[in-house]
Amino acid sequence: MNEQLCGTSRIYGCRFSLYPMCDNFIEVIKTALREVDTSKVWIKTDNVSTCVRGRNEHVFDVVKAIYLHAAKTGTHVVLNGSFSVGCPGDSEGDVYLSEDDVLLNEEKSKDISIETAMQFALYPMGIPHYMDVIVDGVNTAKDEGVFVAGVHYATHLDGDTHTIFRTIKDAFLSSHKEASHVVMTVNLSANSPSTKRKPGDGK
Amino acid sequence: MNEQLCGTSRIYGCRFSLYPMCDNFIEVIKTALREVDTSKVWIKTDNVSTCVRGRNEHVFDVVKAIYLHAAKTGTHVVLNGSFSVGCPGDSEGDVYLSEDDVLLNEEKSKDISIETAMQFALYPMGIPHYMDVIVDGVNTAKDEGVFVAGVHYATHLDGDTHTIFRTIKDAFLSSHKEASHVVMTVNLSANSPSTKRKPGDGK
Ligand SMILES: [Ca+2]
Repeated sequence: MNEQLCGTSRIYGCRFSLYPMCDNFIEVIKTALREVDTSKVWIKTDNVSTCVRGRNEHVFDVVKAIYLHAAKTGTHVVLNGSFSVGCPGDSEGDVYLSEDDVLLNEEKSKDISIETAMQFALYPMGIPHYMDVIVDGVNTAKDEGVFVAGVHYATHLDGDTHTIFRTIKDAFLSSHKEASHVVMTVNLSANSPSTKRKPGDGK
Repeated sequence: MNEQLCGTSRIYGCRFSLYPMCDNFIEVIKTALREVDTSKVWIKTDNVSTCVRGRNEHVFDVVKAIYLHAAKTGTHVVLNGSFSVGCPGDSEGDVYLSEDDVLLNEEKSKDISIETAMQFALYPMGIPHYMDVIVDGVNTAKDEGVFVAGVHYATHLDGDTHTIFRTIKDAFLSSHKEASHVVMTVNLSANSPSTKRKPGDGK
């Protein structure tokens, strides 16, 4: 492993986009953002996506809250993003690692009950046994009790949004124990008019 | 490298979702799909995403065509996906590798002129020098003449959609020369109300 490239920074991040499938998508996004306290993360939005960085608790807390506050409108919304830890390179935003672990959004998020269909994929970088790490990560998900199915290039989950976020966070953190640089792509969908996926709808 | 896990299959694939940000998003998706000939790829849609697999020419041809035919409506549309090659595991769809290389959609796609803002990331799996491969892939993009900027966890491109697809295809294929399993995430956005990114808007 190249120690210079793969730094020891423990900063977590997520680059994500929120897509409300409606004419007033801007209003849905802005309203959701107003409901979320982002003061414990570094945050920057451009014309394609938003990036949040900081302690892992706060990164997951903020992303989940933005998704839930948009989904509770009843609009079909999707959140698509990549979580990352250990990415070689800069350390901008490291100051946010000194925040405490009190979640700023869980209190308002926890009573929002939304069913989510989602697909995620783990990418443990730089190690030859990455497939074993991926299998372990998916098994972590299975232990959480959400519906799990393998599809090409991803794992499909169906369930309550809070359970799903706990599941993918566990899978991500457990993979990070075995690889210093891990990326996890997520594609979360709420209020979709498509029929729900049923057990047995495998590959 | 575990030879059993990392097969020699040359099947390419892309799992993607198309998001038209409008009330009649279903109609925009269905209309775009009707314009695209998918007969040279394995294709399956579920309630979160669509997966296409086959020869790399046809995978890129189909994904680009679906995006362009949706974008030409003028609606703000996003296509988010992961291209993959060399993924260990099954070989379902290998029959599509025997198709010839005549593109089925380029003729109808080539005159659709759409400006795209996009972000992509390369993940060459299972090798310690993956950062070098990523840097090479991004340099390939710079050679194509589109606007390129580094952002956290991704590379940002602005330009004509055809140039951008040629760019990311080159970056993906050149990375594949150095790693048997490569994933490339893409996030393509057309007709966005957000202001365009300017040179200098780096990290
Ligand atoms: Ca997306």
